[in-house]
Amino acid sequence: MSGSIYGRYFSVTTWGESHGPAVGVVVDGCPAGLPLTEADIQVLMDRRKPGQGKYTTARKEEDEIQILSGVFENVTTGAPISMMVKNKDHRSSDYSTIRDIYRPGHADYTFDAKYGIRDYRGGGRSSARETIGRVAAGAIAEKILERIGISFDTRVISVGGIDAGEEEKVKEFLDRKMKEMDSAGGIVECVIHGVPAGLGDPVFEKMDASLAKAIMSIGAVKGVEIGDGFAVAGTTGSQNNDPFRLDKEGKIVKKSNHAGGTLGGISDGSDIILRAAFKPTPSIAREQETVNRSGEEVTVSIHGRHDPIVVRRAQVVVEAMAAITIVDLLMANMHATMSGIEHFYGNTENDNAGK
Amino acid sequence: MSGSIYGRYFSVTTWGESHGPAVGVVVDGCPAGLPLTEADIQVLMDRRKPGQGKYTTARKEEDEIQILSGVFENVTTGAPISMMVKNKDHRSSDYSTIRDIYRPGHADYTFDAKYGIRDYRGGGRSSARETIGRVAAGAIAEKILERIGISFDTRVISVGGIDAGEEEKVKEFLDRKMKEMDSAGGIVECVIHGVPAGLGDPVFEKMDASLAKAIMSIGAVKGVEIGDGFAVAGTTGSQNNDPFRLDKEGKIVKKSNHAGGTLGGISDGSDIILRAAFKPTPSIAREQETVNRSGEEVTVSIHGRHDPIVVRRAQVVVEAMAAITIVDLLMANMHATMSGIEHFYGNTENDNAGK
Amino acid sequence: MSGSIYGRYFSVTTWGESHGPAVGVVVDGCPAGLPLTEADIQVLMDRRKPGQGKYTTARKEEDEIQILSGVFENVTTGAPISMMVKNKDHRSSDYSTIRDIYRPGHADYTFDAKYGIRDYRGGGRSSARETIGRVAAGAIAEKILERIGISFDTRVISVGGIDAGEEEKVKEFLDRKMKEMDSAGGIVECVIHGVPAGLGDPVFEKMDASLAKAIMSIGAVKGVEIGDGFAVAGTTGSQNNDPFRLDKEGKIVKKSNHAGGTLGGISDGSDIILRAAFKPTPSIAREQETVNRSGEEVTVSIHGRHDPIVVRRAQVVVEAMAAITIVDLLMANMHATMSGIEHFYGNTENDNAGK
Amino acid sequence: MSGSIYGRYFSVTTWGESHGPAVGVVVDGCPAGLPLTEADIQVLMDRRKPGQGKYTTARKEEDEIQILSGVFENVTTGAPISMMVKNKDHRSSDYSTIRDIYRPGHADYTFDAKYGIRDYRGGGRSSARETIGRVAAGAIAEKILERIGISFDTRVISVGGIDAGEEEKVKEFLDRKMKEMDSAGGIVECVIHGVPAGLGDPVFEKMDASLAKAIMSIGAVKGVEIGDGFAVAGTTGSQNNDPFRLDKEGKIVKKSNHAGGTLGGISDGSDIILRAAFKPTPSIAREQETVNRSGEEVTVSIHGRHDPIVVRRAQVVVEAMAAITIVDLLMANMHATMSGIEHFYGNTENDNAGK
Repeated sequence: MSGSIYGRYFSVTTWGESHGPAVGVVVDGCPAGLPLTEADIQVLMDRRKPGQGKYTTARKEEDEIQILSGVFENVTTGAPISMMVKNKDHRSSDYSTIRDIYRPGHADYTFDAKYGIRDYRGGGRSSARETIGRVAAGAIAEKILERIGISFDTRVISVGGIDAGEEEKVKEFLDRKMKEMDSAGGIVECVIHGVPAGLGDPVFEKMDASLAKAIMSIGAVKGVEIGDGFAVAGTTGSQNNDPFRLDKEGKIVKKSNHAGGTLGGISDGSDIILRAAFKPTPSIAREQETVNRSGEEVTVSIHGRHDPIVVRRAQVVVEAMAAITIVDLLMANMHATMSGIEHFYGNTENDNAGK
Repeated sequence: MSGSIYGRYFSVTTWGESHGPAVGVVVDGCPAGLPLTEADIQVLMDRRKPGQGKYTTARKEEDEIQILSGVFENVTTGAPISMMVKNKDHRSSDYSTIRDIYRPGHADYTFDAKYGIRDYRGGGRSSARETIGRVAAGAIAEKILERIGISFDTRVISVGGIDAGEEEKVKEFLDRKMKEMDSAGGIVECVIHGVPAGLGDPVFEKMDASLAKAIMSIGAVKGVEIGDGFAVAGTTGSQNNDPFRLDKEGKIVKKSNHAGGTLGGISDGSDIILRAAFKPTPSIAREQETVNRSGEEVTVSIHGRHDPIVVRRAQVVVEAMAAITIVDLLMANMHATMSGIEHFYGNTENDNAGK
Repeated sequence: MSGSIYGRYFSVTTWGESHGPAVGVVVDGCPAGLPLTEADIQVLMDRRKPGQGKYTTARKEEDEIQILSGVFENVTTGAPISMMVKNKDHRSSDYSTIRDIYRPGHADYTFDAKYGIRDYRGGGRSSARETIGRVAAGAIAEKILERIGISFDTRVISVGGIDAGEEEKVKEFLDRKMKEMDSAGGIVECVIHGVPAGLGDPVFEKMDASLAKAIMSIGAVKGVEIGDGFAVAGTTGSQNNDPFRLDKEGKIVKKSNHAGGTLGGISDGSDIILRAAFKPTPSIAREQETVNRSGEEVTVSIHGRHDPIVVRRAQVVVEAMAAITIVDLLMANMHATMSGIEHFYGNTENDNAGK
Repeated sequence: MSGSIYGRYFSVTTWGESHGPAVGVVVDGCPAGLPLTEADIQVLMDRRKPGQGKYTTARKEEDEIQILSGVFENVTTGAPISMMVKNKDHRSSDYSTIRDIYRPGHADYTFDAKYGIRDYRGGGRSSARETIGRVAAGAIAEKILERIGISFDTRVISVGGIDAGEEEKVKEFLDRKMKEMDSAGGIVECVIHGVPAGLGDPVFEKMDASLAKAIMSIGAVKGVEIGDGFAVAGTTGSQNNDPFRLDKEGKIVKKSNHAGGTLGGISDGSDIILRAAFKPTPSIAREQETVNRSGEEVTVSIHGRHDPIVVRRAQVVVEAMAAITIVDLLMANMHATMSGIEHFYGNTENDNAGK
């Protein structure tokens, strides 16, 4: 595997640059028999669209998804699902000044260091448009999960250090940052309901570890935590351990959920809780010091259509990556026991033998 | 791949339970020609040994590593390196009371939920002894990295919320927690020096994402951050962007390192900085509420040889996982450019053609 | 990984059905800096085109390849290369009669058994059009290999058991089969020149094993052999062993090449020789007994545009799969030795230390 | 993944050299709940033991398997199963003469070309002892398969070109070859009964392709075929297509099985039939021309304990690799349909919705 493929079972391959003809994704491993239309995908796609408010970029992206394979008569066939969105709004001239300049906080320098070549017209593979493929794949993952009762609650919980609930304060803060030609970071929280106990493996493929990779692979994320996260470092065992108890039906549940839904890397039946810290948009109009490709120190001001915060549009990307990961773990778990395998292949005779 | 194999190129497979005959690891993909002895491995192994201080478990683990394959006349041959440590100090009776009880904060319940069977004598695959294999593999990774100038600085930076530098306060705090039959969390920081620019891929295999998975796969880790981590959520673009400048030799460097050494998922030549939050040891002697396998609410007190904090012994596991990850990315990067491939295979004629 | 992704380093994901809007491929892991245009791909594409002679299907497929990503100013950037061919010539009505009938020798029955659903308009993923993606990816692989002096000689060596050199006999035989509304099998041989010694790994990733999978994954292939292949079963060690000798420049070479260029799974510097046996086209106009989806015994005659032999068009698919495999092994081999790694990362100091 | 790991779900990692302290294997991904003892493994191990007849090597290998992890109270726990066999019978002096000589038909030269270093005491990773790990893993795979009614018939069908049924002729032939200090090749056939329809994926992970890789990865195999194999190249569609019919219970079956149990890469419910061609043992006492490490032309006679034919001992290795592959495909198939996933996770409500 190289770097644009994610998922061992439900494999997602994204492709495309912001200023090429299109961006897209191939989902290999989607089960057959899932009802699926372009409209199903579009719902999630629309949640990542820019141009939805004052603090998100004014760039018009229609982002109409097209399904090219793997679906027949509105049902998945088990074949790879190829999806594509055409790039419509090319204004390459916006980017011509940064052709030879390494923008601070961007991947221009590291792309040149690694590949010796760079599509300077946009962010190349680091463009936010790469996430279109993730979101389209995530929409399919959510449809799968919905059918076994798994759902998502994703929201921005802080902007520039301010509790997102304090809407007026956030508004004032962002207005000030825009005037200052600056940008701000934020935190996104994703809560996953209905995950059955047993998903994730105890060593390297822990649910926590898989989610951490999924979320940290989103551009601008610099920290990931599960459950109480970094706060656990300042607490004690007696506070942090979640006592087990029985609910009214006699089912084993936990009294609290500091763990965020996983124990030993395996889901425990509680909500899965994860948070991601996003850095401020690196593209700011304020003048910055930097260096160009010729090795000269220069200054740069980045004008154009950029979000002062990325967290609003990034929420759906967090949710999409979480959904893809949960589907992958869901599939992985299906062959964890001999009785599961025997049951699947119809051996009722031995069904309890291995228990 | 299933859950006990880590790394695409430098593949590490750990095996073994705390109360079986042995624990071990197979490293597949170690390059040929690396000088390697058991003593080289033992150096890192000794850093994870318990019984090294007042606050680490008194359990005597000799943990003498044995190399079983892949090394001939003290040099690696390119064949898989199998390493093993015998389990010597079995006192299974210590664990007999917890055979049917789901310990809070442990994976007992989730193992039963997933597999329907559990080696109740210890933590099974969730035992800290599983990390022996990681550390042994990490020792080989560090030897590889040393030869191209990459080194590690790993330390505990906080214990129970107290700055680890304030040694007296930490001491008092831990003494109190031990008296209270409780435990504490902490934070480990790992700084990696000398990583060349260009490692990591721009999408799913970002260096940050790979490190996040590696570190979050360590038991008890609940949060991972790179560079300024969660603090970026409260900062602005003008503060967080690291300006590029030229050093005395004219090399491109950064004025600051908020990014923690990666831009767009690719190393930028600065130090890689990562931090991991560890939860308090879940095994505490204090009475806790829980449930047993028969579905009854019970209380449990966990006696035995347990560390009140895991961060001291966990440092070397963080370092080992980071080292394994960097080696993997180092290898992945070798075929990133056509000129690199041509140079390797001796085509000097075309050497600059693809640039 | 699921079933539509091939290659660990140079990863090829094909997608698309014969009667959907398009078929395509994403190549992830192509090195940056390779000059590449659509015309480069088209050369190989044209070799798999039908309608090139009397014995290949008359269906008109223009198969114009479009590069959608990963190439900037005619040079690869290291980003995934997405390529697509639109499906133009839909005559679904041709296939309507076979909607409910399981054609002998086809995958209709097994698709239904596995997925419970099937795109009955064509062969779905078993359509020969799936190979378009393989050939497009193979064209890139061949461009990479060309630059380090690796080239291919691929040809049909027998048709229906007749030596392909006896052109008149083959012609008569095929005319007779067409009259008889029947089809014929054949053998394709691929010789790979210029492969350096050292590619392939000694255990599961032997060059022979990797090539066997690559070639056997082509529809209609029922046998694969390397070097003398099945003939070795009837020979002796003294006949089959290839003696080593020195050539005029003192380089170690082999006197013969019964081994087909690999020893212990690793290339030995001689030509790699492989052969694939193709079954006769299963679509024949002659009446055949079979069963329908309702579980009734019926007869079927398959009319339409089908090749009486597949070997002519299949040659380029064999070559493409071989090329993709060799590129993968070429990349895998780059981190096999410590001195190779040190040299790549510029450690001249230790350069011979590990030898 | 590097070269000593096989299987995506049921992952087998072998390690060890013939003259090191031990050889072994780690099986990751074995389902929990399978009754398993060392005696179960030993049954298959004993079938590969040398010293069982006149034509197999007299070397005494006790090969007592030891299970080190993953099994608790004689039942698998879902944790990786580590197994080891100690190497007991070291007579390194036997091999000292070949330290600097490249034996024809062996991997000595290619190991040096690839790694620059070689464990010259035996075949290193190319030693037949590497197959111990494969057979031990195969024994577990067969236990899994047995429980859903899958079984194996493996036999030698020809020796040196003579039908293995003609025992007297084979005996005379082998006696003559031993006198002539020569060796012979042969063919092994493996028939797999009870494989349900639906295993294997339609593109790169075809059942045929996966089996081809598995079998071709066994040292000395130079050809693999499925069903009628190379014979299909000389036949016609009307002969080769297997007509479908209904059996007495109304189940869809095939009238013949030229296909060897797969259509479009997916099992069709018939017996899976595969054959492997083994080359003659390259170690022969007869004098052979070759070259040494110093680049001089020399002659070599290889004395020692070598089988004149490998097919007898290799049968069980073929069976083991086939069993591992079938388990892998069995697991892969469990998440192929939405209704399968929903049924597994207890969604009876939607159970037929996706059909």
